[in-house]
Amino acid sequence: MRSVRSLAQKSVRARQGLFLAEGPPAVREAVRWRPDLVRDLYVTDEAGQRYAEIVGAAADAGLAIRAVGADSLAAMADAQTPQGMLAVCRIPVADLDEVLAAGPRVLCVLAHVRDPGNAGTVIRAADAAGADAVVVSEGSVDAYAPKVVRSTAGSLFHLPVVSGMPVPAIVDRLRAAGVTVLAADGAGERTVDEVDLRRPHAWLFGNEAWGLSPEDRGLADDVVRVPIHGRAESLNLAMAATVCLYASARHGAGSADPPTGP
Amino acid sequence: MRSVRSLAQKSVRARQGLFLAEGPPAVREAVRWRPDLVRDLYVTDEAGQRYAEIVGAAADAGLAIRAVGADSLAAMADAQTPQGMLAVCRIPVADLDEVLAAGPRVLCVLAHVRDPGNAGTVIRAADAAGADAVVVSEGSVDAYAPKVVRSTAGSLFHLPVVSGMPVPAIVDRLRAAGVTVLAADGAGERTVDEVDLRRPHAWLFGNEAWGLSPEDRGLADDVVRVPIHGRAESLNLAMAATVCLYASARHGAGSADPPTGP
Repeated sequence: MRSVRSLAQKSVRARQGLFLAEGPPAVREAVRWRPDLVRDLYVTDEAGQRYAEIVGAAADAGLAIRAVGADSLAAMADAQTPQGMLAVCRIPVADLDEVLAAGPRVLCVLAHVRDPGNAGTVIRAADAAGADAVVVSEGSVDAYAPKVVRSTAGSLFHLPVVSGMPVPAIVDRLRAAGVTVLAADGAGERTVDEVDLRRPHAWLFGNEAWGLSPEDRGLADDVVRVPIHGRAESLNLAMAATVCLYASARHGAGSADPPTGP
Repeated sequence: MRSVRSLAQKSVRARQGLFLAEGPPAVREAVRWRPDLVRDLYVTDEAGQRYAEIVGAAADAGLAIRAVGADSLAAMADAQTPQGMLAVCRIPVADLDEVLAAGPRVLCVLAHVRDPGNAGTVIRAADAAGADAVVVSEGSVDAYAPKVVRSTAGSLFHLPVVSGMPVPAIVDRLRAAGVTVLAADGAGERTVDEVDLRRPHAWLFGNEAWGLSPEDRGLADDVVRVPIHGRAESLNLAMAATVCLYASARHGAGSADPPTGP
C-alpha cells in the first residue's frame, strides 16, 4: 500500500518507471487504449459493481483485478476521492524522433509549465483538438504527477507525451523536421486567426504565471496572440492553449470529427 | 476584521450587498473600471510600495486607503495569499432588461453551474471574447463568492453579471428580445463551426459535471457541440465555453481587437 502511494513522488516514479491512474475515468481510458501499460488494477467491491463495464473490459484485456477495501485504496491513493479504483501503470516511453517520423500536423509544446492543473488541461485540450503529440520541456511539471494525470482526464493514454528535453533542443528537432514553431504570447503581432495553420506546426506555450521567456519566444518562427476583445487582461494558460489548438483543428483539412453521443 | 471575512459567506453578502476583491489584480481592475463600487480598500505597507500604481489610481479616484498589517489583512481575507491588498466592494445591480435594451450581440448564460473555478473562468472567457454580459441562473454558484471572484481575474468589474433568475425565465426574455439561444452540449448535431453566429445569440452552458438538464437543453433554439477530434471524451466546462465564445468573437463583424502590450 505504502509503496503504491509513494508513486506520488517524482523520484519514486523515475526510479520505478510507474505512475498512478486514479478514479474510474482515468482507469477506463487506460484499460481501453493502453492495457499494455497497466501493471496492477485495484478495485473496491462497490466500485466493481458500479463500474462493471470497466472491470469487464479489464478482464477482456487479460488484466488481473485485485479486490481491496475502501480504506486500503484510500491509503494507496493521492486523490482525496479515488472513487474505488486505481491503476499502477508503466510510464510509456515516447520519443520525439518517432513522433516526427510519423509526419505530425499539429504538436503542442509546454515550456516550463509548472502548474499541474494547467499542464493536464492543456494535454486534454491537445487530445480533444486532435493534436498528434505533446512535448513537455525540461523544467516543467512531471506529466505523470497525480494532479496532472487527473487533469488530463485520461488523455495521457490517448496520445504520445514526450518529456525531458530542453526547449532549444525541442525547437531544433521540430524545425529540422519541417515543423513551423509558433510561440503563443500576448506580444504577438498577428492573431491566431491571421496565421497560416495549414502547414505542420507546433504551438509553444509558456509558464502559467510569466509566460514564455524572451529566450524561448525568440526561438520561434512566429509569435502569435489570442485576441482580447473585451477588457480582460489575458486568458489563463489552459484557455489560451484551447483557443490556439482549436484554431489548428479548424484549419486542418485532414482532421476527423467523429460524431459523439449524447 | 471579522466582519470583512464574513463576506466569504453568501448570506452575509446578500444581507450587506458587499463582496471581497482580493489581491492586486482584482483590486487594480476594481479601481480602474468601477471605483464607484469600492467601499473600503485595505493595503499593507509592503504592497502599497510594490503596487504604487494601484494605490495612486485609487487616490486619484478619491478612494480612501486604509493601511493594515499583514496579519490583519490575512484575518480579513478568504484567499490564502491576498498579497497585501483587499477591497470591500458593493455588489453591482445588473438587470437583464437593461442588458437587452442595449442591443447585445453575444451573451453567456450559466445554467446551474456550481463549481466556482469553472464559473469564474467562464466569466473571464466571456469578457476576453467580448461578450456583452453574463447571466448566472438561480441554482448556480454565487458570482460574488471569493473563489469565483478570484477566477474571474477582475472580469466582474468589466461586464454586467445578472444573477438569480430561473433558466426558463432567462430564455423567455432573451427570445422576446430577438436573441437566439444556443445550448452548448456534446449531443448537438451541429458543431460550433457550422452554426450561424452573426445574429445576436446567447450561449447556454450547463453544470460542470452533468451538463445541461434535458429541460434546459429543450428550451434552446439549437443544440451545438464543440467537435472532439482526438480520443478525449470531452472538454471541461471552461474550455468548451472558451471555444464557443471565441467562435462568436470570430464571427462578430463589429468586434474590436485592441492591440495588447508585451
